[in-house]
Amino acid sequence: FYDYGPLGSQLKNNVENLWRTFYLLKDNCVEISTPTITLYEVLKASGHVEEFTDLTVDCSRCSRSYKVEDIIEKGISIEDAVKENKVICPTCKAHLQDAHAVNLMFSTTIGIGEGRKAFLRPETAQGIFTNFHLLYQHRRKKLPFGVVQIGKGYRNEISPRQGTLRQREFSMAEAEIFFDPKDKTHPYFDRIKDNELILFDNEKEWTVSVAEAVKQKIINNQALAYYMYLTQEFLFTAGVDPTKFRFRKHAADELAHYATECWDAELYSERFGWVECVGIADRSAYDLNAHIISSGVDMYALRAFEEPREILVKKVVPKMNILGPRFAGKAGKIKQLLEQMDATEVKNITVTVDGESIDISKEYYDIVEVKEKQTGKKFVPHVIEPSYGIDRVLYFLLEHNYVKGKKKEEEYTILKLTPLVAPIKVGVFPLISDDQLIALAKEIDGSLRNEGIATYYDESGTIGRRYARMDEIGTPFCITVDHDSLTDHMVTVRDRDTTKQERQNIQDIVGYMKKKMTC
Amino acid sequence: FYDYGPLGSQLKNNVENLWRTFYLLKDNCVEISTPTITLYEVLKASGHVEEFTDLTVDCSRCSRSYKVEDIIEKGISIEDAVKENKVICPTCKAHLQDAHAVNLMFSTTIGIGEGRKAFLRPETAQGIFTNFHLLYQHRRKKLPFGVVQIGKGYRNEISPRQGTLRQREFSMAEAEIFFDPKDKTHPYFDRIKDNELILFDNEKEWTVSVAEAVKQKIINNQALAYYMYLTQEFLFTAGVDPTKFRFRKHAADELAHYATECWDAELYSERFGWVECVGIADRSAYDLNAHIISSGVDMYALRAFEEPREILVKKVVPKMNILGPRFAGKAGKIKQLLEQMDATEVKNITVTVDGESIDISKEYYDIVEVKEKQTGKKFVPHVIEPSYGIDRVLYFLLEHNYVKGKKKEEEYTILKLTPLVAPIKVGVFPLISDDQLIALAKEIDGSLRNEGIATYYDESGTIGRRYARMDEIGTPFCITVDHDSLTDHMVTVRDRDTTKQERQNIQDIVGYMKKKMTC
Repeated sequence: FYDYGPLGSQLKNNVENLWRTFYLLKDNCVEISTPTITLYEVLKASGHVEEFTDLTVDCSRCSRSYKVEDIIEKGISIEDAVKENKVICPTCKAHLQDAHAVNLMFSTTIGIGEGRKAFLRPETAQGIFTNFHLLYQHRRKKLPFGVVQIGKGYRNEISPRQGTLRQREFSMAEAEIFFDPKDKTHPYFDRIKDNELILFDNEKEWTVSVAEAVKQKIINNQALAYYMYLTQEFLFTAGVDPTKFRFRKHAADELAHYATECWDAELYSERFGWVECVGIADRSAYDLNAHIISSGVDMYALRAFEEPREILVKKVVPKMNILGPRFAGKAGKIKQLLEQMDATEVKNITVTVDGESIDISKEYYDIVEVKEKQTGKKFVPHVIEPSYGIDRVLYFLLEHNYVKGKKKEEEYTILKLTPLVAPIKVGVFPLISDDQLIALAKEIDGSLRNEGIATYYDESGTIGRRYARMDEIGTPFCITVDHDSLTDHMVTVRDRDTTKQERQNIQDIVGYMKKKMTC
Repeated sequence: FYDYGPLGSQLKNNVENLWRTFYLLKDNCVEISTPTITLYEVLKASGHVEEFTDLTVDCSRCSRSYKVEDIIEKGISIEDAVKENKVICPTCKAHLQDAHAVNLMFSTTIGIGEGRKAFLRPETAQGIFTNFHLLYQHRRKKLPFGVVQIGKGYRNEISPRQGTLRQREFSMAEAEIFFDPKDKTHPYFDRIKDNELILFDNEKEWTVSVAEAVKQKIINNQALAYYMYLTQEFLFTAGVDPTKFRFRKHAADELAHYATECWDAELYSERFGWVECVGIADRSAYDLNAHIISSGVDMYALRAFEEPREILVKKVVPKMNILGPRFAGKAGKIKQLLEQMDATEVKNITVTVDGESIDISKEYYDIVEVKEKQTGKKFVPHVIEPSYGIDRVLYFLLEHNYVKGKKKEEEYTILKLTPLVAPIKVGVFPLISDDQLIALAKEIDGSLRNEGIATYYDESGTIGRRYARMDEIGTPFCITVDHDSLTDHMVTVRDRDTTKQERQNIQDIVGYMKKKMTC
């Protein structure tokens, strides 16, 4: 658990807003916001109750618990380590046995007494999937469309470590883009197809154009490749060092339970090595299918025919004579859910009524083929998901832009954050503590703030000391008001990276600064 | 639990960013961001474990639970209702007894096995208080200064109701402004002192200038009055109807356990009556004192003397000969905590070592008076806190700006949101589906988005239908591209509220729109 202080919190806001610029304005996704407390039923359906686990061992001698992955030798697989009795307590050196899966979700209870079982969400994505049918309406039933969510995610890690890189409560930004599985093209693909992606194939880094990567089937489809490029462009714009960036493809045994293909955007740290910061996964129809089966809600999209057709479909026909007596008050709701289902894609039927999961065995319904006039074919959309660990991105922006040097024999630190994400954009100083200069400096400070530009007003210490304070926290520009300013209405603007100083008109200063803040 | 869809989520972002403009840029507070999962010890110290409760009754006949306050007659106090056996089950009409306090925090466990007990935070404020000593350093040890936090808060309500007004998971924006208790003036007070506040004294509404309210002691101090005015100004700027707004002072028996004075900003709803949306409380030194006592961390500020003085202070001197054997490995840490304490303000000593609360009884230490050279007097700062329920503010922006009328005999809805908070700022339409018009409209749409302006591009249906869609969701402006636009490089801009249309140059359109979005 970490706190972000005033500068960290502002950096985080700026990075999240830049992310919104990329996904909401450049890419036309919409944003939603759903609760962090998520019902058991939702995460049961999504597979997290069963699959979101770490293999754990407890040491009976020193009564500590460990994640197996963390304490085995490098190069050996978890399965082999367990099988060959090679899991050793790093504290007391005992051989550990009885490795067991521990679920990583924080659990809680809604309401008093027994209440309802719930978890803190392990990802923001499920809040988007469970709303798919409403979002499909909102987007006027046209695919592809994307939905994003920015917010907290939670994992009850057995051993959190590596500072902000592995936290129990963290910030995520996720986009779920819904596609027709028969058409994974992207409308803006042509704009970026000739740009290069930086890939890594477990041996060497190499670059290839987006179009070529799709053509050679290195990346399975346009949609996945487009969002990989958008990720790369976002990270570079935010200030990630391109020489410390690569995409690595997940091997089959690394894939999460919901993914068919996944690329990690990895960033290089002098301290931690290569670290995954963004995962871009093809989740196929996994999640929507799971929610359709569990809740019976119609989460299909429609691929329009050129003209309406008569089609044979399989329908579930409830046998009310035995369903009614068996399920009493709930039978009506069950009937309704069953009749909505498309039996072509459903095998074992489970419905959720008033929060209770009910298995419906075959004796309670028939499957019949009927002719229906249809305007299109129903299908379950596929999902491409770029999923960002925001705290990790923030860590790398700091590490990649941290420059330690010397100035006049003293240690001197500059944080070369881009103006887009820097927590403070402009330092404003009166050259000396003179009432007239202070008044003018405060007036300029106020006019910048009125236009939404974060400033830091400072009148204490030498100008050199004040520049140094701003360099250290990544402020890209400083404005100094001197005696000439009172007559020529100009101020000195100093650029952090070039240390060049130039005179600018006070009346243009807001516009001048705003231009520096646009991407 | 509610989900915000694409428009609601955007409205929420805009309101939160406007709030930041008021508190971070106009008022110079800083923002921090701390976890929602909060350790038991913190909320034990703050009084929430004991005090954050609702009086509850269970009905043994129909096995439902109720909050006593919700089911008793209006006008009767909770105490009287319980004493006089007037608590009646609204479902089965049984007389209910055994009212008991139920804590309203969601609890969870950190780590596996027994782990550590924690809660989801009931307010964001505690994350600010526990960081006070660091923030005081960051603000270069000068009071007053303010710290804000925007994020989720949680209350495990017994019976959530009234839509988004009483949720179990909600969004808050809180500011904690730290003052020297001997100087509750505000540096910007003069700017606003002649403006009027709208007050309510349980009988009538009346207005009084901020300065007069402080002078007449209607409001206890400048600081509280200043933040009340800032709240009023923020709400009016966001779009709250001033005729449906008032401040109401809490009666003594209404005050939260930490407050000495509190004013509620109440908004009027046609559906729910007057509803508290913001509380502005004087929390005095309550919270910092509580954390000093519980954790021993130095959360004092210093009021500088004109020159250093020799002063008698009371110090805690641990008796190591009995403390050592009794507390073994922890004695060193306890010694250190005791020695930091200022015994003048401490009575029963409890220290927290490695998460464990330990009471230290009087046999383990002496209190001695010693002379110390001091540069100033240490004191515990007081706190003024404006605390906003963001979901409530959002609800009222919708209700106060929702205008239902008729147009050509048909129902017609306009949502008169100000351009500052409207989810979509500009609708962009080609007049007809002509390739040239579509290309130009998309180009204009793109240039607005590049400058951070949220747009909605729409080419389907009549222009009237497209205007209606935008009016309904609160979009303040629409731009239509017609055939003339191709030659005269101008477009028609339509204003939602006046319905006036005027021609504007395409090359100035971004600047024109940006001006409309500034406050």
